[in-house]
Amino acid sequence: MRIEEDCVGKMEVPEDALYGIHTLRAAGNFPITKEMVHPDLIESYIQIKKAAAKTNCEAQKLDVKKCDAIIQACDELLSSGDQSGFITPAIQGGAGTSTNMNTNEVIANMAMKLRPKVFIHPNDDVNQAQSTNDTYPTAGKMAMLKLMPNLLNEIERLVATFEELSRKFKNTIKLGRTQLQDAVPTTYGKSFHAYASLFKRDLRRIKTASEELKTISMGGTAIGTGMNASKYYQEHIVKNINKCSGMNLKSDNDLIDAVQNTDHFVTFSAALKTLAVDLSKVSNDLRLLASGPQSGLNELHLPKRQAGSSIMPNKINPVIPEVVNQVAFEIIGFDATVTAASEAGQLELNAFEPIMFKSILTSEEHLTRAIKTLIDHCLTDIEVNKEKCADDVRKSAVTATILSPELGYVRTTKIIKESLKEDKNVKDILISKHILSKDKIDELFSPKHLVNG
Amino acid sequence: MRIEEDCVGKMEVPEDALYGIHTLRAAGNFPITKEMVHPDLIESYIQIKKAAAKTNCEAQKLDVKKCDAIIQACDELLSSGDQSGFITPAIQGGAGTSTNMNTNEVIANMAMKLRPKVFIHPNDDVNQAQSTNDTYPTAGKMAMLKLMPNLLNEIERLVATFEELSRKFKNTIKLGRTQLQDAVPTTYGKSFHAYASLFKRDLRRIKTASEELKTISMGGTAIGTGMNASKYYQEHIVKNINKCSGMNLKSDNDLIDAVQNTDHFVTFSAALKTLAVDLSKVSNDLRLLASGPQSGLNELHLPKRQAGSSIMPNKINPVIPEVVNQVAFEIIGFDATVTAASEAGQLELNAFEPIMFKSILTSEEHLTRAIKTLIDHCLTDIEVNKEKCADDVRKSAVTATILSPELGYVRTTKIIKESLKEDKNVKDILISKHILSKDKIDELFSPKHLVNG
Amino acid sequence: MRIEEDCVGKMEVPEDALYGIHTLRAAGNFPITKEMVHPDLIESYIQIKKAAAKTNCEAQKLDVKKCDAIIQACDELLSSGDQSGFITPAIQGGAGTSTNMNTNEVIANMAMKLRPKVFIHPNDDVNQAQSTNDTYPTAGKMAMLKLMPNLLNEIERLVATFEELSRKFKNTIKLGRTQLQDAVPTTYGKSFHAYASLFKRDLRRIKTASEELKTISMGGTAIGTGMNASKYYQEHIVKNINKCSGMNLKSDNDLIDAVQNTDHFVTFSAALKTLAVDLSKVSNDLRLLASGPQSGLNELHLPKRQAGSSIMPNKINPVIPEVVNQVAFEIIGFDATVTAASEAGQLELNAFEPIMFKSILTSEEHLTRAIKTLIDHCLTDIEVNKEKCADDVRKSAVTATILSPELGYVRTTKIIKESLKEDKNVKDILISKHILSKDKIDELFSPKHLVNG
Amino acid sequence: MRIEEDCVGKMEVPEDALYGIHTLRAAGNFPITKEMVHPDLIESYIQIKKAAAKTNCEAQKLDVKKCDAIIQACDELLSSGDQSGFITPAIQGGAGTSTNMNTNEVIANMAMKLRPKVFIHPNDDVNQAQSTNDTYPTAGKMAMLKLMPNLLNEIERLVATFEELSRKFKNTIKLGRTQLQDAVPTTYGKSFHAYASLFKRDLRRIKTASEELKTISMGGTAIGTGMNASKYYQEHIVKNINKCSGMNLKSDNDLIDAVQNTDHFVTFSAALKTLAVDLSKVSNDLRLLASGPQSGLNELHLPKRQAGSSIMPNKINPVIPEVVNQVAFEIIGFDATVTAASEAGQLELNAFEPIMFKSILTSEEHLTRAIKTLIDHCLTDIEVNKEKCADDVRKSAVTATILSPELGYVRTTKIIKESLKEDKNVKDILISKHILSKDKIDELFSPKHLVNG
Repeated sequence: MRIEEDCVGKMEVPEDALYGIHTLRAAGNFPITKEMVHPDLIESYIQIKKAAAKTNCEAQKLDVKKCDAIIQACDELLSSGDQSGFITPAIQGGAGTSTNMNTNEVIANMAMKLRPKVFIHPNDDVNQAQSTNDTYPTAGKMAMLKLMPNLLNEIERLVATFEELSRKFKNTIKLGRTQLQDAVPTTYGKSFHAYASLFKRDLRRIKTASEELKTISMGGTAIGTGMNASKYYQEHIVKNINKCSGMNLKSDNDLIDAVQNTDHFVTFSAALKTLAVDLSKVSNDLRLLASGPQSGLNELHLPKRQAGSSIMPNKINPVIPEVVNQVAFEIIGFDATVTAASEAGQLELNAFEPIMFKSILTSEEHLTRAIKTLIDHCLTDIEVNKEKCADDVRKSAVTATILSPELGYVRTTKIIKESLKEDKNVKDILISKHILSKDKIDELFSPKHLVNG
Repeated sequence: MRIEEDCVGKMEVPEDALYGIHTLRAAGNFPITKEMVHPDLIESYIQIKKAAAKTNCEAQKLDVKKCDAIIQACDELLSSGDQSGFITPAIQGGAGTSTNMNTNEVIANMAMKLRPKVFIHPNDDVNQAQSTNDTYPTAGKMAMLKLMPNLLNEIERLVATFEELSRKFKNTIKLGRTQLQDAVPTTYGKSFHAYASLFKRDLRRIKTASEELKTISMGGTAIGTGMNASKYYQEHIVKNINKCSGMNLKSDNDLIDAVQNTDHFVTFSAALKTLAVDLSKVSNDLRLLASGPQSGLNELHLPKRQAGSSIMPNKINPVIPEVVNQVAFEIIGFDATVTAASEAGQLELNAFEPIMFKSILTSEEHLTRAIKTLIDHCLTDIEVNKEKCADDVRKSAVTATILSPELGYVRTTKIIKESLKEDKNVKDILISKHILSKDKIDELFSPKHLVNG
Repeated sequence: MRIEEDCVGKMEVPEDALYGIHTLRAAGNFPITKEMVHPDLIESYIQIKKAAAKTNCEAQKLDVKKCDAIIQACDELLSSGDQSGFITPAIQGGAGTSTNMNTNEVIANMAMKLRPKVFIHPNDDVNQAQSTNDTYPTAGKMAMLKLMPNLLNEIERLVATFEELSRKFKNTIKLGRTQLQDAVPTTYGKSFHAYASLFKRDLRRIKTASEELKTISMGGTAIGTGMNASKYYQEHIVKNINKCSGMNLKSDNDLIDAVQNTDHFVTFSAALKTLAVDLSKVSNDLRLLASGPQSGLNELHLPKRQAGSSIMPNKINPVIPEVVNQVAFEIIGFDATVTAASEAGQLELNAFEPIMFKSILTSEEHLTRAIKTLIDHCLTDIEVNKEKCADDVRKSAVTATILSPELGYVRTTKIIKESLKEDKNVKDILISKHILSKDKIDELFSPKHLVNG
Repeated sequence: MRIEEDCVGKMEVPEDALYGIHTLRAAGNFPITKEMVHPDLIESYIQIKKAAAKTNCEAQKLDVKKCDAIIQACDELLSSGDQSGFITPAIQGGAGTSTNMNTNEVIANMAMKLRPKVFIHPNDDVNQAQSTNDTYPTAGKMAMLKLMPNLLNEIERLVATFEELSRKFKNTIKLGRTQLQDAVPTTYGKSFHAYASLFKRDLRRIKTASEELKTISMGGTAIGTGMNASKYYQEHIVKNINKCSGMNLKSDNDLIDAVQNTDHFVTFSAALKTLAVDLSKVSNDLRLLASGPQSGLNELHLPKRQAGSSIMPNKINPVIPEVVNQVAFEIIGFDATVTAASEAGQLELNAFEPIMFKSILTSEEHLTRAIKTLIDHCLTDIEVNKEKCADDVRKSAVTATILSPELGYVRTTKIIKESLKEDKNVKDILISKHILSKDKIDELFSPKHLVNG
């Protein structure tokens, strides 16, 4: 054991631990969840520290040897991916200070391990010109952005999948339903296309919302005034972070604002929630259209993924849409959490970013996986019960809506009423009553005409 | 115009206005909504003032003449029901002070109008031994309690209606559905009974939650210490409020707690939300079971309330369950509002009770009316399509689950699979393959046996 | 009384009512709230009907005389603003059908009143080529857009007000606070500027989100296939609506999608919610900074709007920020409602648009008024207690953070610790211990240097 | 690898896996989270299976040898606590079927491993007379109940801790604050007592809500009709579960209702949310009262847990209340998830219990740990800055409220106004103006009198 000291007092730290006293206190202070800080957030933090060392050195505020040692330590941590020294839990008090302190300590100790002759102080050197309050939200945004390509990729695949289904079932006529009541016909081509259009919007919205995450508060230090950061540093830190991370971040024009406000996260979370709501709506539709196999709508056949019941043999359930629904409900909850946490910000800082970050990063990952699951385990092999769908349209009285412009609303009402009451096909009524000619009827009621091409 | 003065300055007040300067400032300060404070809250406030005057007089802290004048004014306002002097909006800053001040002023001026020789001061006399902080939550709770009988009555009617439907359709067999897939049979008797059981719990829960509202903070004055309230007053005010209102309230043991905490409202709101969620679930079921009329489940026939479409003649929609769903979504939102407002309380007071009260009182009223609408406009005349229901069961392969104890899960799986694939009735398969005797089959598959009596 | 008939049966309608049977049924069916459909939604609906008549006439599907009569009726209704014939409540089942039917009936009857010789059928003529399902969301979006200028104007004023305050208090130094603990200094110039920056983003976001509302589903009719709408109509209706309304709407590329999905509303509601969250955060700050007048932070003096207490004389409360907080909580609730309602959409339609529209339109109006109230009743006359603020900075130990680059984190910790423990000013310690020269100290601790210019 | 088959087809299963094909499919179907099903839910499931075997054997529906083998397997799994064969993730589609199937398979295989001569079928034997739909909610409730003692214990400790603090600071006078403005005095004794009273209610409410969880649906099988369960089983299963688990569960009177409705979970979640809201309010108070150390309220000294800033030396933050706030925001989100999931139930089943269970079980654990952390890391060693508190009261003008009954509201207003404006102590004004005698003043303004004893 080695002894370390902070403003609270002395403490024993395991001899060979990369972390130090600040980290160890935090690990003991917040025993809420065993889930650690997201690895992409840690990685981003290390990239920030590397860029900061480089920038401070360029600004001649940090000794070259120290800078080299810090950079070497960062590179070692980044390339190995070993985060075993990062032991602060995902839910933590202190506005992220513990995660920042943890990063500073691990880098300092790693640097001194690699370069035993150089002394590196976690705060004076690794944290130089920085505060938790500008680095932590930056690392959080970087982590969120790192999860974006996978998420966008799955949404794009979802759009492409629905477009493919739209082409595949272009002419598969089916009954529309509004308010769960039989409505005029459409096609599965159109239905699947509508889903593609919906998720195209989500794709665009999430991209737009994520653009906000690219504006960061680096250089603001404790509250945005930039105390203890050099002018050179302030002007070059973002560029250097971009070099170290391959990202494309930019500095906020108002660092005071950037340090204290978390509306970016509320906005991004809301975009994720909207996607979740849309996924839930479509999952509801899929489950409803696949209801049956005998006494339901029985229009869609979802791929069979597993036996559906421990007691009812051969029962197959729509388990994939069901899991998507649940992820959607989870994300609706996470959005409520982010909303409450953001509203609770006070004065120069919002101390509740850890729970926002945990909620949003989980939302991104679960949405990514839920969409992937939906595509690969359900949509790709979906089949349509074409006969049932066509038959529904054929026998449907509501298709007589097509007669309205010819016969008027009132007269058409009567025909449909008779059709339903007497269980006669509308066409037969029209013929038997000599209301329209057979040719006219065939023209009006042709599938192509009914769905308007 | 008459001139009045407060700590802010002087102001003109309409000559014959019952309200005064405090009210007028409030009316100008909060131009958010035109909705006024709920009339039951105002009525309750007047009852509190009447009881306070009585108690202060008994305690020999208020002159008998003043007391009589105040009581006469209160009685006049209560019996006429004229609330035209109450002009503070439902959404107001100030923790309800404006509503209290409004009440004090109206009563004082009414008293002096009725008894021109007696001088009544709104604060020293009408508000004696009181603060907004103990009277406002009390008036809010009283208003919520006053809306309870109607709500409970409708929930009771809802339970009774479902029980009546349960009796009416006791033996109407139907297919069960789990995860929207055909499941083993049940009866509408059982289905409707389950709804009755569900709402019985809501009835009990809402009653229990409303019990909390009966504990009030009167006597605590500004922050619960009871400054400026006499011991006599503290011991007798609740009893006198009960006399004036016919209610059955009791004093909180910890008035500091009672003045500052609003968990009672979160609890009551949550009970209302649970009812809303349950109403929404049942409305979803009704709409789904009534889907059709041709290509849906087509089991229930809801009474026709109105033409359902401006374009599709004769379309009838489940408009009553739909409006119930929407009220449920509204109440889910109100509960989120109450949660946020309660969390925002600080130190000795929660300043955000006005929005809690508005949300909860509206929730109670909308739920009451939604249930009444559901019963009277939908449930009472609901019909079941018995033939369709019986036919679904007859043709259903999943009923073969009944064979499992005899044949085992694996063999039964094969039989059901064959039934579905070959479109053969399970019974026919059993007979043709000599698996079970006709008698045994008839016994197993009798409706009574299938639904377990 | 006159007798009218629909698919449900016959009904008496008041002799001179502009509305008809469909409206009257609706008015009786949904006794939830007395709040009527928003007047801007009704106005928009009439503009749609006018444009539709025009377009159908151009397409030679509607007789010129009928068209003229309808247009004259619409103009009459629009110019008079008389909506007394519109009696469907804001919360209604039926996906808006009742509001559409109401509009059709009022226009038809008004047209026949104005032109007694022309027969106008509400459905065949006024509703020609339309359905509730394309017109109702269009009218809803138009109403939301009509409320935008006022909202945007207030947000712009809010930004301008904070910028003005930022200039006014440019050099007013104050202590920053993170996690409610004393932090390094800043200025009220910077603080108010941060609020301006925050609301600039809300302005942009709400504008962006509202852009989505400009894409409409007209021409889709019942489910988006456009049944019973002519090609000419589909191509010209949006242009004609723009003419009749002065708006700048455009047609959706995928009308099936446009009729069934409500993600636009979730997105718009989320942008309003984000604004609400930000308003709440800033209101919290204002209330906290104005805490006192003696034993609080006592930095801000908010204008005195009204006496704050019925019992504590001369108490003044931050009633304006408090009412803004409450509106924020209300909007957070409305957003939960919109989320739940959108998720509940099924297949070709979301039947729950009425509650979404009510929630969003109220959100827009309440936010508009809340911001206006905040500006006019609070921000404009806000004053800063400059002496207190400067004094806080002067005596503050945390300003010694400025020494860190010189003395290091550890040594600075000790100095601050000593300052707090011994209640000595940091500067005095530095001088007495000969750590830094007086000149250096003055330079480092100059307000300008502390806040970084 | 061994080959297993289900209604979907054949699949390879690792040779020595205790789980089988159903489990393996599930593990592949739902790759959303790596979090497994909660261990207490698995344990409860095994207890249910043990009780079911016992009951079926008593009912002479299950061979004694099979029963013994199953019970031995259950005991082995329960005593070892080895859940490595349970590989279904916490977020799963299928209404819990996968978890049930996994349990059936593990027990069957374990039984055959222990008793190689006995054949045990996962469905026919282990799952006999059961369905996922009655066992899964039962196991979920049992798991929730198992987490209760720890939660209740921490709430009780929280109450006791606040009561202890209340005694410790019984006579520590302090200024009250309403709406963040100085209000009449109170004591920390009263303040801490109010928190104790608050959490006493939460204790009671959570107990009451958890009572609902003791009513279970066992015997209902697939949809509550009890198909394939013997009468004996239905009458004895709950008693046997109680024996196997040491719990005190009871059977629902309406099993159809019990299988399909999830209002118990909404109710329980709401009670947890109310506790979370209350914890957040109190944490907000603690942070506010501890604000400083120089330019804040500076009344409370929370124990120093860790260095608060990487840049500001010696800064100490209220990290423990901060982490409690975040847990509260998380639980508010979980409650939104449970609400959405419950509302989505359809007909005879709610398929979304897995996400409800995950949310609620996490809520219970996080609340338990958050309270424990709050007590042990913050409350126990809290100190009050008595001098500052007393001084605040001494200099406070608002204490003059005590004069109101003597001097009236108007005259008192003027005195307080003068006190604040001229920065003169109220007592001095009273004396200098000969308004009251020194003795009277001392009596009125004695701490004891100010706080009403």
